[in-house]
Amino acid sequence: MTYGVGIMLEEGLVLAVDTRTNAGVDNIATFRKLHTWQQPGERVFVLLSSGNLAVTQAVVSLLTEGTHASKRRGAPPNLFAAETMFQAARIVGEASRMVRKADAEALLQSNESFHAGFIFGGQIGTERPRLFQIYSAGNFIEASVDTPFLQIGEHKYGKPILDRVAQMNMSLGQAAKLLLLSFDSTIRSNLSVGLPIDILVYSRNSLKLERTRRIGADDGYFRKLSLDWSKALRTAFANIDEFDI
Amino acid sequence: MTYGVGIMLEEGLVLAVDTRTNAGVDNIATFRKLHTWQQPGERVFVLLSSGNLAVTQAVVSLLTEGTHASKRRGAPPNLFAAETMFQAARIVGEASRMVRKADAEALLQSNESFHAGFIFGGQIGTERPRLFQIYSAGNFIEASVDTPFLQIGEHKYGKPILDRVAQMNMSLGQAAKLLLLSFDSTIRSNLSVGLPIDILVYSRNSLKLERTRRIGADDGYFRKLSLDWSKALRTAFANIDEFDI
Repeated sequence: MTYGVGIMLEEGLVLAVDTRTNAGVDNIATFRKLHTWQQPGERVFVLLSSGNLAVTQAVVSLLTEGTHASKRRGAPPNLFAAETMFQAARIVGEASRMVRKADAEALLQSNESFHAGFIFGGQIGTERPRLFQIYSAGNFIEASVDTPFLQIGEHKYGKPILDRVAQMNMSLGQAAKLLLLSFDSTIRSNLSVGLPIDILVYSRNSLKLERTRRIGADDGYFRKLSLDWSKALRTAFANIDEFDI
Repeated sequence: MTYGVGIMLEEGLVLAVDTRTNAGVDNIATFRKLHTWQQPGERVFVLLSSGNLAVTQAVVSLLTEGTHASKRRGAPPNLFAAETMFQAARIVGEASRMVRKADAEALLQSNESFHAGFIFGGQIGTERPRLFQIYSAGNFIEASVDTPFLQIGEHKYGKPILDRVAQMNMSLGQAAKLLLLSFDSTIRSNLSVGLPIDILVYSRNSLKLERTRRIGADDGYFRKLSLDWSKALRTAFANIDEFDI
């Protein structure tokens, strides 16, 4: 499995995804599932992926080829030609449909299913930053003020803290902390999600992607966060009245 | 769905399960999923159930009939004849297999599957209290000092707090509080689990079940716990250093 989460803020976007892939618990590997494309000063895009790794890597490759391609017939769709984030999200969905068309039947013949999920965020020009969840079918939903965060993959363990704390008016640093706490809960309770985590912080209107970090087991901040959070939870637990029937 | 959880302690057992059943989000009802049998001073049994309600109710009815039945041929297995909790857990598994035998084929013809999950705890005579998770197939595992809690149904949202805090040497009141916090996280994040919750606290060697409570939306303790916990989590969150790339 995978765990990925993105949050849309007044100040920008924060996205994070783990790097564990597995085909059974005896076949675990590390792959990057956070991908970016940018034309600094003009547009930035971030894509988190979950699901069949062959499928999601193909989608990423198609999108990358699309940004290099000249406008020939049958060229992959080009993110850099999108004028709005809505158009860009459609292009990601279109790339997913192209991979389905190419691979789904053969996958079925091997008793595998076509499944892929994406979180896609970014900003184009003067449009506000936007955040989407794109499904296997290529259709998508967009984050809003009511629900500013979107999750893919193994999302349940890390959802309670997001449900309680996530708000659009958080600072980027607070939101990054929140996402990492959500990961901490997930990683402790589920083996299929593992370090390192790739995290990206995007400041609204900067139109460049320069704040990304890979957080591994030796990351001082994450270790401290994990310890402090455990301690704080135990203290909070101790301070609540006991139940007496 | 359902959420049910039991914990084995040095001081006894605490078990809790919600009461929501649903066949689609437009067909929600309240049913008891915590069932007990006892011979005060001799033996006590508690069963939490999840899965197909027709299946689990049939299992409960079979077990109840078993405790009333004379020893005729073909009578349902009798919990009150068990000499150990292991034997009693086998009897629950046997009842589940009897229901499968009776219903599974017809269920399949209606494109329904046979699925049921149980948490079963209790104490017989001088044996220590024991706690089991019984699967659809009738086989089971037992809680131990390494993992003193067992969960059924929608278990992921409420697992992180259990993973962090659950220990066999907690008091009954602490454990009940912990289980209710685990429910609070689940109920906030998943509509298919809902109040009221049935909770039972069993004191080791008391050999009687007298401490049960139904916790509804108007329960003062649960409301305070939920509010205090939210407040404590937000405070704990605020006290952790922000992330800075």
